[in-house]
Formats: sequence, structure tokens, C-alpha cells
Amino acid sequence: MDKPDLDPKAQTAVYKPLTPDELGERLSVVPAIAERVGTDPASWTVREVGDGNLNLVFIVEGPKGTVIVKQALPYVRLVGDSWPLPLYRAFYENNALVRQAERDPGSVPEVYYFDEAQALIVMEYLSPHKILRRKLIDGEKVDGLGPFLGRFCARTAFRGSELSMKSADKKSDVALFAGNVEIPAITEALVFTDPYYAAEMNHHSEGLEEVVKDLRANRELKARAQRMLMKFASNTETMVHGDLHSGSIMSTDNDSRVIDPEFVQYGPLGFDIGMLVANFLMAYLSQPAHREEADLDIYQEWILSVIDETLSTFEAEFTHLWTHERTGMLYPAALFEDQGQSSADICAGVLADIRKDALAICGIEMHRRTLSLAHNADFEEISDEALKCRLEVRNLAMGTELVLRAETIGSTQMLLNLARQFNAKDIL
Amino acid sequence: MDKPDLDPKAQTAVYKPLTPDELGERLSVVPAIAERVGTDPASWTVREVGDGNLNLVFIVEGPKGTVIVKQALPYVRLVGDSWPLPLYRAFYENNALVRQAERDPGSVPEVYYFDEAQALIVMEYLSPHKILRRKLIDGEKVDGLGPFLGRFCARTAFRGSELSMKSADKKSDVALFAGNVEIPAITEALVFTDPYYAAEMNHHSEGLEEVVKDLRANRELKARAQRMLMKFASNTETMVHGDLHSGSIMSTDNDSRVIDPEFVQYGPLGFDIGMLVANFLMAYLSQPAHREEADLDIYQEWILSVIDETLSTFEAEFTHLWTHERTGMLYPAALFEDQGQSSADICAGVLADIRKDALAICGIEMHRRTLSLAHNADFEEISDEALKCRLEVRNLAMGTELVLRAETIGSTQMLLNLARQFNAKDIL
Repeated sequence: MDKPDLDPKAQTAVYKPLTPDELGERLSVVPAIAERVGTDPASWTVREVGDGNLNLVFIVEGPKGTVIVKQALPYVRLVGDSWPLPLYRAFYENNALVRQAERDPGSVPEVYYFDEAQALIVMEYLSPHKILRRKLIDGEKVDGLGPFLGRFCARTAFRGSELSMKSADKKSDVALFAGNVEIPAITEALVFTDPYYAAEMNHHSEGLEEVVKDLRANRELKARAQRMLMKFASNTETMVHGDLHSGSIMSTDNDSRVIDPEFVQYGPLGFDIGMLVANFLMAYLSQPAHREEADLDIYQEWILSVIDETLSTFEAEFTHLWTHERTGMLYPAALFEDQGQSSADICAGVLADIRKDALAICGIEMHRRTLSLAHNADFEEISDEALKCRLEVRNLAMGTELVLRAETIGSTQMLLNLARQFNAKDIL
Repeated sequence: MDKPDLDPKAQTAVYKPLTPDELGERLSVVPAIAERVGTDPASWTVREVGDGNLNLVFIVEGPKGTVIVKQALPYVRLVGDSWPLPLYRAFYENNALVRQAERDPGSVPEVYYFDEAQALIVMEYLSPHKILRRKLIDGEKVDGLGPFLGRFCARTAFRGSELSMKSADKKSDVALFAGNVEIPAITEALVFTDPYYAAEMNHHSEGLEEVVKDLRANRELKARAQRMLMKFASNTETMVHGDLHSGSIMSTDNDSRVIDPEFVQYGPLGFDIGMLVANFLMAYLSQPAHREEADLDIYQEWILSVIDETLSTFEAEFTHLWTHERTGMLYPAALFEDQGQSSADICAGVLADIRKDALAICGIEMHRRTLSLAHNADFEEISDEALKCRLEVRNLAMGTELVLRAETIGSTQMLLNLARQFNAKDIL
């Protein structure tokens, strides 16, 4: 629970990015790695597998086994060294992985070794897991996905909040994670604000101009997005993963894990589940470009069933924890059960508040993934530009509906029906 | 902006509470004090003036002038050394005074000297100021009180939030103040939870039993109070004073200052103004015990006019700052004014949200001051037990109304009319 030991300047002096050639030499001296891969680096195979934007990632295979080595880069890869990012985010990622493993055992890769100075985490190699976004584009199903994700979101949300934690522990954790300022700043700008004006790094498909113009002219929409930004930036209800989309989930056909919590922060209880649902909705709405007519409906309905199971498991698990693990200072039993009163409908009220936040965040995430800097492969891989544009219009329109009417969508069935409507609706 | 330098154990070893006899010897060696009071402690007059619960307070007078010396005690005076409280709260109080002076110049006493190890602040002696609560009980008016308090609340709320501050600065400040865990814990328990069950340190007037029983049986009321607790404990919208009642304000007949921000924390934008209004409402509702019939109505209406001016100034000043100082990341001009759109009604919407929170907090504060540990002199000084009970019933009932219907009280006039109704209404 300590602060990062190193100040950023000291870290910059000793930090050195790994190369495949040097990696064996540098890491084979670490017992926690050698015992899992093998002691002789000459027998190792090192493959660099970029994770996209912010890090070096290597798969290191040896006679005894395989590990993942992830090292933070001091800038945003996608943009280049003109956008520096502090290395200390690896410290927070490691802390997040430790807490997630405690709160939902088995949900995240095991950490074998952490080197703060090198911003380097060595962790469990997941195989034959693939990034879930890839599987969704390819039309592959994952058994148990919704229940796994619903449980993960409920457990990390509940057990990281003052519904469960001792307040002093939670507050010292808030202080710790508040040190990770640059990372939330990315989400604050790219997710909540940039989609709604002509921000420098924005880009969007040709043909969206009119839709984007309308969206950016919508004052109520922008005010609601900013209201959610204020909640995101101020509301330290629980420790959130912070970037829980289908690219942060790895799955086989029946096993899933959550990875990459480097955007960890304290935030609203509904943040992770809202962003997650958005990414399933984008997978759903982009399917007409990836499936033949014969398979389309079945696979799309499967995606909706995952959303349904994710949300119903989230609510069931949260309610279970409310009943059995409400040991924090919030809604104490002294006020309810100890006085012979049920608090079941009060839990339902808390869940309704979480749902409202989640749906508004969901809509904002749908916007930013089509308008802001970082787009989704779900849409980006569509080569038919006209079709891509048509599907993105549906996505933007549904996002707007969610932001504007979050509080009126009282059930998952309403949400899924809304998705079916937008999937069938062409505005342009 | 640093953390407290001393860890609590090291501080305990060097800390020594002041006594009137030793004070001169210990403080006359400090240049910042000697230059304001005089260099020879033999010429000083030292008077201890207890501030109530948590501190030693001395007025130190010398040939060159007078200062206030405030030293934290390591326990809650009211309860005794069975309730220890960390000395480092003086560090946070000093930081709060510095920020309040920056955000609303002239609103708080000037700090001359801070000794972290001794948990000691030497500050401006306010004279002929009296504690505002005393003046309200005594029926004294203060010119400019509402505008002063409305401005203070608006400026500290706005300028301490991400409407104004750079996000990185605000977040590092959140991390700093998150270290002050024990103090918010007092508010969390005593204000938000204890009134609603038979907590150990509670006490209330005889005759309230039935009313208290009904109040504690009201599940919706308790759920709403806990919802506000969750906001109070998690929602780091701005730096709040944290204890802004009429005992934390000193006034002459035309000048006022805010003192004692040792309950400082990051919290909801509506917290201070809500607690403040509650204390004016309690002053109002307790007046029938303190005034003759002839003066009662005029003075009560004056108190309501202070509430009116406080709230209208708060909204006007907040709106002014929204227009002229909205330099933070929230609701940026890029989304509105830079696109040729007004954000005036969006500011009004933010103010409506603040008002809802404030009125709910107001109701909770009215409850806790009659049912929890720390009561108000407004009621406690009433010697006619039956009258006291009757007025407290009005206070409790109005508090309940505010918590249950905060979102329906859309104007200050509605609030003031509600106060007039409860002032005329006897339930028992």
C-alpha cells in the first residue's frame, strides 16, 4: 500500500526498455522468472506481441514454461513520444492486479514478478486464450462469459467500496491511486469530452459529417456527458478497472480472464460495467459487416444474451454480497436488519442508481469509439466504407439515446430491445 | 502540498500540550509570534478559551498585539482520552486555511505560524468578533452575513473543484487530504448514521421518544441518509470546510469570518452550504425559547432573510465564476461557448443538483444535532424542557421533510415557507 518508491526522474534514469535480444540476459537472473521459464536464457524464445498503445509485451517461452513480460513505455505508442506517459503507471497496474485477484480470485492473470524501476510486470501466460474482441469479430462464442464478467464487475465494485472495506483502508487506497493522474486524464479527455467537439486527435469515417454535426450541437447530450465526467473524475466509490472493453478480456471457448488494468482508478460503481456493455453493443451493431446473413441473427442474439447474463449476474452477485458481506460503513445492518427491517429493496435502489450511471457511460463509450482517438476493431476492420458508416450511425444514435434516456431504461430487456431497434434502423 | 512530514508516532514523542504558564516561554522564541505580540513573554497575558471539543485555544496578548494560539489535542475533549484523535489534523487545518484564504481572500483568519510537530497554529485574533451561534441565540443581527457566507461557499466550492482547478493539481490535493481519515470518520458516523439508530453516544431530550422511534423506523429516510453518506464519503467534488455551522463563524455587527476548518476534506459541492443552512434553520426554530413575543417574528424573519441571501448569493457567485473562471476540465468552453452555445442553463442544472444534495444534507444535520452526540446550544440552552422538546420536534420533522423531499423543493422561497410552516406546527 506504499506510494511508488521512485520519483519519476530517478526512474527515468535507470529505466531501459527491453529488446527481444537483451530480455533473456536481463530477466534470467530473476529467480521468480527463471523458475518458471528456465535458468538458461539461450533456451528461451522471446516474441514481441504489441498490445497496442502503451506498452511493450513479450511472450517468453522456455523449457520450464511460458510467461508474459509487460513493460510500460514512457509515451503513447499510437501517438509517439510527443505524448509522454509516466512509467509509474506499472506500479498502479500491479497494485490493481493484486486487488482484483483478492476480490475475484482467478479472474486476472497471476503476477509472478514486479520491477518498479523498469515498470515491468511478469505474469501468467494465458493459453489458448485470445483477445475477446477478436473472437467477437470472428463469430466465436465463449461459454460462461456473461456470468464471469458480471461476477467480476460485481465483486470488484462491491469489495472495493465502503459497502465492504473499512473506511480508513479505502481512503488510504484512494490516496494511493490518486497519484496516477495522467492515466485518468486520458479517459477524461478522450472518452468524455473529445467526442463532443472537434478535438485535435479525433477522426471518424467519411459520411458521418451530418450525424456528428448534430451530435456536437446537442447541448443536453454534452451537458449529460459532462455530468458523467464530473462523476468519473470525483466519485471514488470503488476501485475500477478503468478500461474494461473486449480488448481487455482474454477467452478460450469456455474460460475468460480480465487483463490490463493500467487505467485503474477510484471511480463510480457503474463505470466498468457500463463501458463493458458498450463494447458488447458495438460488437453487436458491427456484426452485419462480419457475418453472412445465415449466421448473423443467431450470433447477434448470442451477444445480446451475453449482455443479459452479464447484467443479471452483476445484479445477483451484488445483491448476494450486499446480504452476506456488507461489512463497511455504508448502509450498515445497524440501521436495517438489526432493527428487524429488510434492506433488499434498498439494495435494489442502489443497483438502479448504478444502472443509470452505467447506461450513460455506455452511451458515451459508444460515441468515443467512433469519434475520438482510439477506435474499435469491430468497426475499423470493416472494409466496405459505406456499410461501416451505416453501422456507425446506428451506434452513434443508440449511444445518444442511452446518454439522454439512461434513467428511463429500467430493465435489461428494454436495453436489448433498444439494441434490436437500432440494429434495424437506418437514419441516413 | 506535501504530506505531513511526521509520522504519528514520531509526532507523539515530541508533542507537548501547551499550558498558560509555559506558553510564553515556548512561543516567544518564534519570530513570527514575537513580532506580533512582543519579545518579552513576561509582558504577555495568556487566556485559555476552550473551543469545545478537540483543541486547546489561547488568546495571547502583548504590548505589540494579540494572536490566537490553537493546538490540537490527541483526543476528543468531549469524550475524553478514550477517543483518540490524530494530531496531524492540524496539518490539514493549516492547509485548509491557506486554500480558503486563496479562494476567498479575507474570509478566514490569517495564519502567522504553523508548527507541525506541536500541531499548533498561531493566527489572527478576531476582535470584537463573537461566535455567530451566540449572537443568534442572543438575537443580534449581522449586516452582510448572507452575502459573505454565500460568497464563501460559492468561491471555495467552485475554485476547489475541477470546474476551476487543473485536474492534476486537484487530484494531488485529493490524495493529500485523503490522509486525514479519522476526521471524516467522525462526520460519517455522528452525522449520517448515528441519528438513525440507538448509537452508543447518542442522547436526546425527554419526550422525543415516540418521534425518534418513528424516525428510526423510516426505511426510506435511512436509505436516503445513507445515499448522502455514500456521496459524502466518495464524492471528491471540491475541498469542503466540513463543519460549517454557526459555531464555525465569528461576526461583529457587520463583519464575519469562517474559522476552524479541521474537518476539511474533499466532498460534495453542496455539503458546506447544506450544513450551514441547517444551522440557520435550527437557530430559527429555536427562537421561540429565546425571544419575547414582540421581537420574535422580526428576528425569525431576519434569520430567514440570511438564508435567502446566503443561497441567492451562492447561486449568483457560482454563476459568475462559471462564466468567468471556468478554466478546469469540466464543462469546457470548447463544448459550448466556443461553438456559439450558451451554457447558462447548464450552470443552472449543476446548481439544481447542488441544491438537492444541500437540502438532503441540511435535513440530516438537523437530525443529528438533536439526536446524535454533539448538540447545538440553540436548543441545549433552553431550560424549559417541555418547550425545548416541542421545538426539537419541529426541527426533527422539518429535517425529515428535507431528506425525503429534497428534489421537490425547487426554490428558496419554498424552503423558507416550509420553515414557517414547521415553526407554526406542533405534531405532539
